[in-house]
Amino acid sequence: MNLNQQLRVTVWNENRHEKQNPAVASLYPLGIHGTIANFLNAQSDLCARAATLDEAENGLPNSVLNATDVLMWWGHLAHQEVNDEIAEKVYRRVLEGMGLVVLHSANSAKPFRKLMGTSCTARWREMGEKHRLWVVAPAHPIADGLGDYFEIPHEEMYGEYFDIPTPDSLIFISWVQGGEVFRSGCCWHRGRGKIFYFQPGHETYPIYHQEDVQRVLTNAVRWAAPPPPNTFRPMTEFLHTPLPLDPVTTG
Amino acid sequence: MNLNQQLRVTVWNENRHEKQNPAVASLYPLGIHGTIANFLNAQSDLCARAATLDEAENGLPNSVLNATDVLMWWGHLAHQEVNDEIAEKVYRRVLEGMGLVVLHSANSAKPFRKLMGTSCTARWREMGEKHRLWVVAPAHPIADGLGDYFEIPHEEMYGEYFDIPTPDSLIFISWVQGGEVFRSGCCWHRGRGKIFYFQPGHETYPIYHQEDVQRVLTNAVRWAAPPPPNTFRPMTEFLHTPLPLDPVTTG
Amino acid sequence: MNLNQQLRVTVWNENRHEKQNPAVASLYPLGIHGTIANFLNAQSDLCARAATLDEAENGLPNSVLNATDVLMWWGHLAHQEVNDEIAEKVYRRVLEGMGLVVLHSANSAKPFRKLMGTSCTARWREMGEKHRLWVVAPAHPIADGLGDYFEIPHEEMYGEYFDIPTPDSLIFISWVQGGEVFRSGCCWHRGRGKIFYFQPGHETYPIYHQEDVQRVLTNAVRWAAPPPPNTFRPMTEFLHTPLPLDPVTTG
Amino acid sequence: MNLNQQLRVTVWNENRHEKQNPAVASLYPLGIHGTIANFLNAQSDLCARAATLDEAENGLPNSVLNATDVLMWWGHLAHQEVNDEIAEKVYRRVLEGMGLVVLHSANSAKPFRKLMGTSCTARWREMGEKHRLWVVAPAHPIADGLGDYFEIPHEEMYGEYFDIPTPDSLIFISWVQGGEVFRSGCCWHRGRGKIFYFQPGHETYPIYHQEDVQRVLTNAVRWAAPPPPNTFRPMTEFLHTPLPLDPVTTG
Repeated sequence: MNLNQQLRVTVWNENRHEKQNPAVASLYPLGIHGTIANFLNAQSDLCARAATLDEAENGLPNSVLNATDVLMWWGHLAHQEVNDEIAEKVYRRVLEGMGLVVLHSANSAKPFRKLMGTSCTARWREMGEKHRLWVVAPAHPIADGLGDYFEIPHEEMYGEYFDIPTPDSLIFISWVQGGEVFRSGCCWHRGRGKIFYFQPGHETYPIYHQEDVQRVLTNAVRWAAPPPPNTFRPMTEFLHTPLPLDPVTTG
Repeated sequence: MNLNQQLRVTVWNENRHEKQNPAVASLYPLGIHGTIANFLNAQSDLCARAATLDEAENGLPNSVLNATDVLMWWGHLAHQEVNDEIAEKVYRRVLEGMGLVVLHSANSAKPFRKLMGTSCTARWREMGEKHRLWVVAPAHPIADGLGDYFEIPHEEMYGEYFDIPTPDSLIFISWVQGGEVFRSGCCWHRGRGKIFYFQPGHETYPIYHQEDVQRVLTNAVRWAAPPPPNTFRPMTEFLHTPLPLDPVTTG
Repeated sequence: MNLNQQLRVTVWNENRHEKQNPAVASLYPLGIHGTIANFLNAQSDLCARAATLDEAENGLPNSVLNATDVLMWWGHLAHQEVNDEIAEKVYRRVLEGMGLVVLHSANSAKPFRKLMGTSCTARWREMGEKHRLWVVAPAHPIADGLGDYFEIPHEEMYGEYFDIPTPDSLIFISWVQGGEVFRSGCCWHRGRGKIFYFQPGHETYPIYHQEDVQRVLTNAVRWAAPPPPNTFRPMTEFLHTPLPLDPVTTG
Repeated sequence: MNLNQQLRVTVWNENRHEKQNPAVASLYPLGIHGTIANFLNAQSDLCARAATLDEAENGLPNSVLNATDVLMWWGHLAHQEVNDEIAEKVYRRVLEGMGLVVLHSANSAKPFRKLMGTSCTARWREMGEKHRLWVVAPAHPIADGLGDYFEIPHEEMYGEYFDIPTPDSLIFISWVQGGEVFRSGCCWHRGRGKIFYFQPGHETYPIYHQEDVQRVLTNAVRWAAPPPPNTFRPMTEFLHTPLPLDPVTTG
């Protein structure tokens, strides 16, 4: 395969739990970002690199963002430390065509909330309960290769009401051991960009090492990718630009 | 209130379990249809009557169907005994504007399957498990007056994958004690008609005596009702009718 | 009717064209806001008042906003003059349950853009072309009482691509004389609030005096209204609140 | 590319206009089916063959249908001549995972109407008016490579209200010279299958020779294709199969 045809994925992580909590560092010696980038790079059509909060420009200078087809985002402790200007650039890049895959507690990340227009809040409880994710859109490419459901043995509970706009496609609904349900796999279009939110991924469990989870995220990257070429278009293109009358109807 | 402004509801029931099973007859001495019609009639804006399978024309002669704004449908044992012509009339009346509220095992009823275009099959298991219905569309009128969730103490399990078209609005998702989830409250538009499917209602449990369930069904009837007047229009109106060119664009 | 049961509507207008352009003042001697409030007040179930940009707190102090069930918004010249804090309060009030009806060029208003999460840009051209609005959701309450289409004899052109999230319900599609189409009547849910965008309403044409337009806006107010009572709930209710385990599944 | 990985497309055509009308035969010497199959076969990942109404079993014996990933369907004069059993097989095959691309007047074809659950009627007028198809979902793969709009110089008019269920994705809206609009590119999911309806294609105009139209149909075939492998599953799999209780929640 021509390397130029690979999808360029940037896996962004705030990378704080890994530094502060030995249990997390032990589960993810490469960081959550490194683990995800690694399994994506095992696919010949994907080229993934990592970026983290504490790097210059939060790891997302223009040189990186402009070379990213799909951005993954994991954050939890430090949503407010993401620079507003960087968050705005990510937001605009999605409207122009970049895919965005939002993981777990990044439901509260700045770019996601701005793209959704809602609070994105949910119930939660941390007791390591079992979650079972049921496929409710078996024909959607993000569900390719999955069975009727798959399980996360231990996970932080996220429950409804999840304050999101109605998904354009609802892929997974989670059953939670303690009595809740959750829309745990959701797709939206915003401008020319595609967005996928996926609930599993609490940092204290080895969730990103699970084969089913890796399959979902690999599918999601391919679904969210913009088509080649000429996809990225400035969102301000038509702003303040009165258009000429079409000749066919003036005669 | 002017009685002419009441919504005219017909509660249809195959009424077989009630005749065959003393436990069901004991729970529903009036039949499921009679119980539902009674609580609807407690509302001043609603006028409900019952109709059952074993009546002439399956209880739905033209005189009844043409005087029905919203039809409720409960069936289980005898879907195939519903006359095809009657099912077809119900189908067409929905496209012309009649509301349809489909209860429990009527997911396999002829008119519902024809309106959906899918098999409408689901997983099921009868062990009397607890169901908890979470509200995922709190701004929808069918959820008016409900809390974050309500429970059915004992119910037949229905689980995903539920083979339905994507609902136009998804109102409830059920958590099931045994490990399943279910899209248990779903809205669709078909032609000029509105359809609501509601999962609870196995005949061996006193589900239609629950206050929350009665509230949902009352809300659903009001939501599904056609607007006055001139709502019912023949679905064949434009068929084979070439329209004249609009004068504004010919000059 | 008990006056306490009336829906409380606030019609907000930047009210600048009316002050600056005698042609607009002549078309709308009461201002666009006054004209709209007047025809709404002709309905016994509605109680409308006006609010304008140049009033204290942009006409929307807490005392007004907290007593508003549905807010209408017309703006064009002065989107940037709306105080950020006021825009934020409107945004939050919608998530908590207030209806929002967004008119014409208010597609670029701060609260609407924040609720949508997109640029909300569109093509435009000002030549007074004819628009014809086709009803594509005849069963939706906002289309009650309309025919197959209605016309705006002269209107500023808005055309696709309209950079909005997929509407939860698409009610009207406009045909434009010069060759464009536009999704001119769109519904969304955000949190507990309902939003309707309606394209017609350029200030130099007597559009809000048209009967069909008045019918649409009257329908929209009733559709967007929150249900009584207990509807307005703080959006932060579940934030940072871990929930107890449900007893049924712990035993 | 491994030929086994090609998508298997069957282009079905009633093939009556071509036999009866010399003007149509002149535009489409290979038949509409042959023209479409030819431009699909120019793509290395696609393998298309044709099938027509007057062949044995309407050209769709099990050996063909079971080797079809995506079925295209053009019909107009002879919808009623399609054998009910064949139509039923097509319907079931879609629920099991086959893609279906429905062309022009096949909005009235038996399998499409059965999958939609509505009358699928629309306004129409045959005056060869210009149509302009606007892209309203620029991020959808069916719109890949298209500009903001493309035109059909002469086409039979189809206009709203188009009696279809709300599309899962609305891709194109047509502007019609005579004053109508039309949802001319619509996607739905039914069971495990994907369906795309595309309005252009009246037999007396060279529409399937247009490059933009060919691009849309090529995109549509790839979008509608089922994922490899294990995609086709019998729709009756869960019917009447009570499931065992999941062990995790019984202990």
